[in-house]
Amino acid sequence: MNTLIVFAHPEPKSFNGALRDAATEALGRGGHAVRVADLYAQGFCSEAGRGDFASAKDPDYLAVMREQAHAWKTNGFAPDITRAIEDIRWAELVIVQCPMWWFGPPAIVKGWMDRVFVPGFTYGRGKWFESGGLAGKRALLSMTADGTNSSYAWRGRYGDLENLLWPVLLSLRFVGFDVMKPHFSPEVSKSDDQRKALIADYVRRLDALGGETPMFFHAEGDYDENDTLKPEVKARTVAQRD
Amino acid sequence: MNTLIVFAHPEPKSFNGALRDAATEALGRGGHAVRVADLYAQGFCSEAGRGDFASAKDPDYLAVMREQAHAWKTNGFAPDITRAIEDIRWAELVIVQCPMWWFGPPAIVKGWMDRVFVPGFTYGRGKWFESGGLAGKRALLSMTADGTNSSYAWRGRYGDLENLLWPVLLSLRFVGFDVMKPHFSPEVSKSDDQRKALIADYVRRLDALGGETPMFFHAEGDYDENDTLKPEVKARTVAQRD
Repeated sequence: MNTLIVFAHPEPKSFNGALRDAATEALGRGGHAVRVADLYAQGFCSEAGRGDFASAKDPDYLAVMREQAHAWKTNGFAPDITRAIEDIRWAELVIVQCPMWWFGPPAIVKGWMDRVFVPGFTYGRGKWFESGGLAGKRALLSMTADGTNSSYAWRGRYGDLENLLWPVLLSLRFVGFDVMKPHFSPEVSKSDDQRKALIADYVRRLDALGGETPMFFHAEGDYDENDTLKPEVKARTVAQRD
Repeated sequence: MNTLIVFAHPEPKSFNGALRDAATEALGRGGHAVRVADLYAQGFCSEAGRGDFASAKDPDYLAVMREQAHAWKTNGFAPDITRAIEDIRWAELVIVQCPMWWFGPPAIVKGWMDRVFVPGFTYGRGKWFESGGLAGKRALLSMTADGTNSSYAWRGRYGDLENLLWPVLLSLRFVGFDVMKPHFSPEVSKSDDQRKALIADYVRRLDALGGETPMFFHAEGDYDENDTLKPEVKARTVAQRD
């Protein structure tokens, strides 16, 4: 399975780098082709703006989504976006490897979504969620943190981890990915033993990933015309409630 | 009250710009001093990295938080961070004005948090939440979206708005802010009348903001040594549950 690792840490020798390398090796051993997109090393830009586009549909008023749709039709994206789109097209599995900063991925990962998840390519004209542009591909968010598992629980200081990551997981689903349960590596600063154990855990997870069922999201047919779950449908995701 | 508007939209003439201008006028009329930090216009950088620091505590290994702590002690931040820190110090109320992109603020706002909410200044040595470095200041997240209120509800497609914004609201609280209920302007593309009504709503909100009670967050004493709510404490925030 073609696997793209989107790597987002400014220090290549970081523990995130060790997880990237362990994944590359484990996936290679399993016969998968691996490509690493090191966003920092590529000088990937985070801020959606005029620089994203070779030409302007409206030079006097920048409506980002409209310009993205125009650039998609005219093949007019900046080189870093074009490259990121090609990487995603190639991939059957996209892993995002990054630290938890302020209860989410670093800004550069958000920038990758803001600038690369463009209409036409990833959604539009009724194509979203299970019929999104990236349907059939899988996505796995692999994140590290200094915090403990207990602080990322429902009665923990930060609340449940999947609920905390819901904006990211929902975005991945919106564009069509089958979203795997996020992989979380806690307490990375604790000890060398802890880090070794976390790497082993992650490799075990990846070795078995092919047999895993993706996270549940409600399908298009569960919603009424007001984007609300139909009365007979019980809310079943982590961030929706009856 | 000194008010800083952190403005994060690449188009100054956007509806976000109209909300920024309406806020500037309404707050000025109310006798408040207003400063606008237009992150795009300032060329604010989003990616935390080596460029953030004038010197390196460890030139061979970039641990962002450690370098931030070092730069705080040595007054060694890049000019855009120094300026952002000075703006926050000056402010008694910080408004973040931005669109909803992929279920959260644009990358540049995340970059502002990643790079400016540094240890020493905003947290550290037991200073966090109600005793965080920015305690006594208020923060208001004002966001626009094309979506409807019903899609940002518990049984809506995206789940409850405050739950969706929890990672941002929690970050603001972590550093000590009194966090106001987010201000949400939905369906901004609907019509001119809708936009006029949204501006009027926002001005009314700002005029009455001084009398508002901030959002509830659990206090330090509610948690045990495992960062878990003590058995006798009932979970009361939007993203924590018993």
